[in-house]
Amino acid sequence: MSQESTTLASHLAQRGPAAPTRDAWTVLRPLGPHAVQITSGLWHQRAQANRAASIPEGLTKLGEAGNLANLEIAAGRSDGDAIGPIFADSDVYKWLEAAAWEYAREPDEELLAEQLRVTALVAAAQQDDGYLDSVMQAREFQRYGNLPWSHEHYCAGHLIQAAVAQVRGTGYTDLLDVAVKLADHLAATFGDGKRRDVDGHPVVEMALVELYRETGNRPYLDLARFFVQARGHGLMESYGNEPTYYSDRVPVREARTVEGHAVRAVYLGAGAADVAVETGDEELLKALSTQYDSMERSKQYVTGGLGSRWEGEAFGDPFELPTDRGYAETCAAIGGVQWAWRMLLATGEARYADQIERMLLNGFLAGVSLAGTEYFYVNPLQLRSDAHPDENRSPAHGRRGWFTCACCPPNIMRTFSSLAGHVATADHRGVQIHQYAAGAVRVPMDGDALVLDVETEYPWDGAVRLRVASAPARDVEIALRIPAWATDATLDGRPVTAGGYSRVSRTWTAGDEVVLELPMQPRLTVADHRVDAVRGCVAIERGPFVYALEQVDQEAGAIVDDVRIDAETGFEVEHRPDLLGGVTVVRASGSVEGRQRPVTLTAIPYYAWANRGPGPMRVWIPVSQ
Amino acid sequence: MSQESTTLASHLAQRGPAAPTRDAWTVLRPLGPHAVQITSGLWHQRAQANRAASIPEGLTKLGEAGNLANLEIAAGRSDGDAIGPIFADSDVYKWLEAAAWEYAREPDEELLAEQLRVTALVAAAQQDDGYLDSVMQAREFQRYGNLPWSHEHYCAGHLIQAAVAQVRGTGYTDLLDVAVKLADHLAATFGDGKRRDVDGHPVVEMALVELYRETGNRPYLDLARFFVQARGHGLMESYGNEPTYYSDRVPVREARTVEGHAVRAVYLGAGAADVAVETGDEELLKALSTQYDSMERSKQYVTGGLGSRWEGEAFGDPFELPTDRGYAETCAAIGGVQWAWRMLLATGEARYADQIERMLLNGFLAGVSLAGTEYFYVNPLQLRSDAHPDENRSPAHGRRGWFTCACCPPNIMRTFSSLAGHVATADHRGVQIHQYAAGAVRVPMDGDALVLDVETEYPWDGAVRLRVASAPARDVEIALRIPAWATDATLDGRPVTAGGYSRVSRTWTAGDEVVLELPMQPRLTVADHRVDAVRGCVAIERGPFVYALEQVDQEAGAIVDDVRIDAETGFEVEHRPDLLGGVTVVRASGSVEGRQRPVTLTAIPYYAWANRGPGPMRVWIPVSQ
Repeated sequence: MSQESTTLASHLAQRGPAAPTRDAWTVLRPLGPHAVQITSGLWHQRAQANRAASIPEGLTKLGEAGNLANLEIAAGRSDGDAIGPIFADSDVYKWLEAAAWEYAREPDEELLAEQLRVTALVAAAQQDDGYLDSVMQAREFQRYGNLPWSHEHYCAGHLIQAAVAQVRGTGYTDLLDVAVKLADHLAATFGDGKRRDVDGHPVVEMALVELYRETGNRPYLDLARFFVQARGHGLMESYGNEPTYYSDRVPVREARTVEGHAVRAVYLGAGAADVAVETGDEELLKALSTQYDSMERSKQYVTGGLGSRWEGEAFGDPFELPTDRGYAETCAAIGGVQWAWRMLLATGEARYADQIERMLLNGFLAGVSLAGTEYFYVNPLQLRSDAHPDENRSPAHGRRGWFTCACCPPNIMRTFSSLAGHVATADHRGVQIHQYAAGAVRVPMDGDALVLDVETEYPWDGAVRLRVASAPARDVEIALRIPAWATDATLDGRPVTAGGYSRVSRTWTAGDEVVLELPMQPRLTVADHRVDAVRGCVAIERGPFVYALEQVDQEAGAIVDDVRIDAETGFEVEHRPDLLGGVTVVRASGSVEGRQRPVTLTAIPYYAWANRGPGPMRVWIPVSQ
Repeated sequence: MSQESTTLASHLAQRGPAAPTRDAWTVLRPLGPHAVQITSGLWHQRAQANRAASIPEGLTKLGEAGNLANLEIAAGRSDGDAIGPIFADSDVYKWLEAAAWEYAREPDEELLAEQLRVTALVAAAQQDDGYLDSVMQAREFQRYGNLPWSHEHYCAGHLIQAAVAQVRGTGYTDLLDVAVKLADHLAATFGDGKRRDVDGHPVVEMALVELYRETGNRPYLDLARFFVQARGHGLMESYGNEPTYYSDRVPVREARTVEGHAVRAVYLGAGAADVAVETGDEELLKALSTQYDSMERSKQYVTGGLGSRWEGEAFGDPFELPTDRGYAETCAAIGGVQWAWRMLLATGEARYADQIERMLLNGFLAGVSLAGTEYFYVNPLQLRSDAHPDENRSPAHGRRGWFTCACCPPNIMRTFSSLAGHVATADHRGVQIHQYAAGAVRVPMDGDALVLDVETEYPWDGAVRLRVASAPARDVEIALRIPAWATDATLDGRPVTAGGYSRVSRTWTAGDEVVLELPMQPRLTVADHRVDAVRGCVAIERGPFVYALEQVDQEAGAIVDDVRIDAETGFEVEHRPDLLGGVTVVRASGSVEGRQRPVTLTAIPYYAWANRGPGPMRVWIPVSQ
């Protein structure tokens, strides 16, 4: 073990997940994991549950489910058959990544010790030439014999991401040594003039670019570029596989939309964006922008959820967005955030930050219980009465402590642990605040720093007060995102335009304030007419939250399957600190199909549903005629 | 070979598929395959295409796809690995069944020779103790080692059905010898006091009851009863399988609805109905009636389609009936007809005949092209612009000549060949006409016979004229089904009640006529409000047909994805003999989303879609506000 905490101090301050090099073609520069502290409010509350419950219990679950045992077998420390899915290692790596970022968020030596213990196990499982995949090793499968399905690069990618997180978050290079050895093995094996083949499940692209960023070793970037370029040229077909599922039907550079398995597609988008900015590939970036637009316009739920089909966990056709069978895998929301974040860095366009907020506060946050101990793999927008759970993943079960395919839980953990990194960025003009959460933002500026205290009850309340704690003695721009929904926002009392950044530039002195007021009236959202599944319906939104009717909150006899909303009368809003960890409920007038008597409909934020057991729920509400 | 054509003549006249014994608890008695001739009109046209194209090409496809080769391997006539799915034999058996019923419909010695040649191959593949499953034999898999998935009983069931069809349809007992040997082996192996286990895919239940009916050998009925009873008691779970998919979560006798894999569920329903009527099991029949009601009310498309989920080819939750991803497997419509037919015989309730008509003329008929050469496995109620085919089965491909899993094509073939058997039944009072088609119905009556000529252009025209050709010299009742949609029907000019049978009893003499007039005005159908997928939409129906808008028939610029229908103005109806083999088109006024100018919408019967290439289509049409 080789902690170098002194020399790494500034390094640690500067690098979170997805940290482009100085030469990268990005408009914005991310701040490090130490630059933003979230100290209260919803995100803090949930990140604390992640720390207190999810991460510790996650390690227990990885033990119980056999993921760690597989590594023991591969390390030659025990005998037996590998257990679980072929990609079991990746869950361990995602957990390691979560633990690493969590250390950066707030050190905990016990968690660090666990992390290093698991790291040592991973290192022990690695083969001499760098190859590492415990399930493949234990089952004595032929290396790379079935790449469309073997997930060998996928596991490698998650290992590399964890290693980069470990060095950036803790300063330890133990896992980085494993990752470099594995990446060197990959670079020696795959690429132009070597084996031309790609993994069925992208993620290694993002990981290799990050490893390049961390080590400066160009072959990792080249290999990532190769993997992005090689798709869409019939590689999967040579195995007899259907290419669409694997994002392999069309070359990334030529694709106009996303298709196939949703998590694969968005991970690929994120990795391709990393490659594009590091190689100055404007054409590729433009293609990714087109694909993202198509996804947002025609293949995304109002919750930000991605992937409408259970079959193949896949994107559907344009506007095929069923509510009841909406798949919207939690991992797809996470991958969507990763892609949007990279597009935001590359372009500086506020719509990507809007997207991140929509996905994080709705589609992602619904994936884990308030206590941080139970999960949803699938996040539909409706559950009817008499819904019958017929699968491990089915939301009709209610939330579950773990899954046979447990990709989502540790993915959620690493997202919470690295969440603060998405709050703000910097450029040569100053700082951009993309997400609003109570705490502090510290932007290093040529030896000096701009430090802002953020006071807000957002996302429950629309007032956000930025107070300058310290600033360099020169003009610095503070840019504040005005969400596209915030049509009546004001900045220091003056109206500002929704959908972009409102910028204030001056020489700041301690105590200066900027006050943003975002409008928090509930609003009714109507879908594109081609989304046939929600014709005649509206969704309630308030601020960044999408709301849902959950049966438990309704009047007696008002079965959620049968209600209609009166779109003409107004709303009643009440913050309920006692309810679901503190939520603002929205009430509206409505009726029940076939009855005269009006009823009051009570809506809660979608993310909070199914924390009181499963039951009927709906986001899209039929409108009274 | 052992044709006994003379002695079998009366036998042949009396037994079609599903022929209850005299002792069975049925209200109605089916007529044999020779009793009803359909001589012109839609069904005749399509049955002729089945005979001229589907059946001959089907045998070629079975050769090309390897199904016959598998039997050659099992017969020790060639070497090699079995090809195709584990249930490959069943497609051969369904083809044999089709060929057998087709011979009864109209003899063709060449087809008979082919049938007997394939029969000999099947016989050669059978093992000495009666076991037969060519794929299992060729792969040297352990017999019954994985019954939830091995389809061994499923294949046996289809073989037995084919054998029963062969003896009833042609008089040959070659395949019956194989079936008896196999059934004896099954009866010796499975059941109470023997191996307590069931196949994951029902069908053997129906088959064994039919074999009992054909042979009088009670152990076949007992085994069928055992298989029906054994489900729902954790047998699948002992293999680690999820029981819902296999209709194994709840005992058949206790189930209140259908769930899981749709084809499995309806085949089980049909087999259980056979067991119920032959064992006088009123409780079981009542449970099946409840299940059928639930299915019809909450889990069936307007097209009669069954099974809304791609994932697991399964029934969804109640009212989960998406249009775009509606699965509605062709085989499920066929199984639905089989179940409804058995419920009709058992109860005499007209609603089951209504169901058969709905399923046959819409959900089933859509499964095959007009020419009888291309098929749909999946029958959604909507295809959008830019729909992308990502699977072999996807309707976005358009129809296909065959499938990797080719269960549907030969299932369609056997249905066409035995279709006439569903037209009429008899009881002690007389004859019941359930379906209307031009031709003749001959009901044997104690040495005498009632012979009716049927003149009609139905289902295009509502007039049905029954003319008595000969009759016994005593009172005989003729019962005519008045479909539930036929609210203004008349019989001999007098209004009759929709949804039941209108009965005329008298002593008939040659030349007597009964004239039924069914109303053929197009009508707009609205779904239950809980079918969220079609809120604000209507479906056009005319007579027994469900209509669809297909892009190719619409005005320039009227993209089917974007149209609305004006529900207040009327329809224009035109019969187009030149179009799609002759169809009545329905025109209605409508508009295009976001435009002022009205458009004329042109609808064709749903079954005829995708005969001019794939393209946007919709059954449920949004109503103009």
